[in-house]
Amino acid sequence: MGRFTPRDPLYADRVADAFREQSASARWGAWLSAVSPGAVEIALPCGEALSAAPGVLHRGIVAALLDDACVLAALSLSSPDDGAATAEHKLNFLAPASGDIVTARAEVLRPGRSVTVCRAGAFAGGDGPLVARMLATLAISRAA
Amino acid sequence: MGRFTPRDPLYADRVADAFREQSASARWGAWLSAVSPGAVEIALPCGEALSAAPGVLHRGIVAALLDDACVLAALSLSSPDDGAATAEHKLNFLAPASGDIVTARAEVLRPGRSVTVCRAGAFAGGDGPLVARMLATLAISRAA
Amino acid sequence: MGRFTPRDPLYADRVADAFREQSASARWGAWLSAVSPGAVEIALPCGEALSAAPGVLHRGIVAALLDDACVLAALSLSSPDDGAATAEHKLNFLAPASGDIVTARAEVLRPGRSVTVCRAGAFAGGDGPLVARMLATLAISRAA
Amino acid sequence: MGRFTPRDPLYADRVADAFREQSASARWGAWLSAVSPGAVEIALPCGEALSAAPGVLHRGIVAALLDDACVLAALSLSSPDDGAATAEHKLNFLAPASGDIVTARAEVLRPGRSVTVCRAGAFAGGDGPLVARMLATLAISRAA
Repeated sequence: MGRFTPRDPLYADRVADAFREQSASARWGAWLSAVSPGAVEIALPCGEALSAAPGVLHRGIVAALLDDACVLAALSLSSPDDGAATAEHKLNFLAPASGDIVTARAEVLRPGRSVTVCRAGAFAGGDGPLVARMLATLAISRAA
Repeated sequence: MGRFTPRDPLYADRVADAFREQSASARWGAWLSAVSPGAVEIALPCGEALSAAPGVLHRGIVAALLDDACVLAALSLSSPDDGAATAEHKLNFLAPASGDIVTARAEVLRPGRSVTVCRAGAFAGGDGPLVARMLATLAISRAA
Repeated sequence: MGRFTPRDPLYADRVADAFREQSASARWGAWLSAVSPGAVEIALPCGEALSAAPGVLHRGIVAALLDDACVLAALSLSSPDDGAATAEHKLNFLAPASGDIVTARAEVLRPGRSVTVCRAGAFAGGDGPLVARMLATLAISRAA
Repeated sequence: MGRFTPRDPLYADRVADAFREQSASARWGAWLSAVSPGAVEIALPCGEALSAAPGVLHRGIVAALLDDACVLAALSLSSPDDGAATAEHKLNFLAPASGDIVTARAEVLRPGRSVTVCRAGAFAGGDGPLVARMLATLAISRAA
């Protein structure tokens, strides 16, 4: 991390706005726990409504959480008026996503004007073990 | 489809139970619209709480819906006491998932005792265009 | 198939040229066995130098063969001067790629000006069982 | 790395044997440049026969090289008589694989008795930039 220079000095505000307005995880009670140029962290409490078994986040919710983190990481390096949307992702589930909180960390591997590649990991309990790993391709759309 | 013989004649009941108890999409108001050996269809109404924009299902929700369909397709060919969980999936988003209803259809490509491979597609409005395509690997767990 | 109209009436010549000049599988003795708008088929004999075990194509070679087929399928719908390169692919190996010949069939799921999505399958012995399934995203590059 | 304990103290010999006998890249002139428990590095010179353009490794060859590295990383943690084969992989191409040598580094994310998950990266010129990133699921087969 720390190896990218943002195109937009106000990238952090833009990421925070996008999180609030567009992320599925924001509606489920997640918060943005870290933002830097090319890297984003989101924390999601494992509420009962999101659980596959008691204290274990549903895999579909883990997918949505990691997808949100990748979109925001891509936006942190985009131009002010650009949008980002996942064109595709690949996700390996490594262990049950258990704990009070599950944390998703995404980072940009290659930023681009039209396509950005990110990877993300989900961690149980914040500092706990890696429970899922995503590799994603994002389409960057230019404002009209 | 129709090319597989179920190991369990009561597979349809088992799939229906698993859908009700384990699927994220069941909690969001989805229903099981078709079940046959090796193939499953789920329909999900695009409620506001699941939308990224008015009338467009959030991509994370599409991921969870397709993941649910793959798990159920794998279970339709498993032994009575087996469980199925996604080890990994890959998902391409092809178009916005718009319409009153989004339908996910999953089918087994290769059933196995420990690993089953499925693919699934999401269709806008039931009979509408393909909006997302998934390829998934499921781990089959044997009952103790 | 047959559902796409080519932008370039000479698409078949262009695909044949690209196959000869850019495909890894062409160097390994493959030939183009079918071309239509949005769909391509390549056949590769299982020579000893490409085998992981006697009569079984190496998985890396299967990956390269399917990747070649996806690139050509994308080119069949592109503008005359466009290039296509795989941005990412996902590949499930379903069974050993055995037989005298392995056939790869690719088709476009969604053509685009900057991004095209394809899927492809590898079949043992031409008409034999599906041995591998790919989902790929191609970047379309415009000529200067 | 260094966080795994091998089940087999002779893992390095076993990995070297498997590389020589089973890897596609070994036939293309690659060598094993590092082996530790759960991590493997392979270096491949960019010969003309493997190139898509002068000095750029073909993407299919990059796929095979990374696939080989993942298989060997999985074997480094397996029991003495086990085999490993890729069940599926996902691969993002980030930049042209140029340079005299391309290096693939694979590491195990989660070792298992029946399924092991690895990730791998390809680097241009040994210490150069990341040119491709793979996430793979390997099936571990027990000896009879």
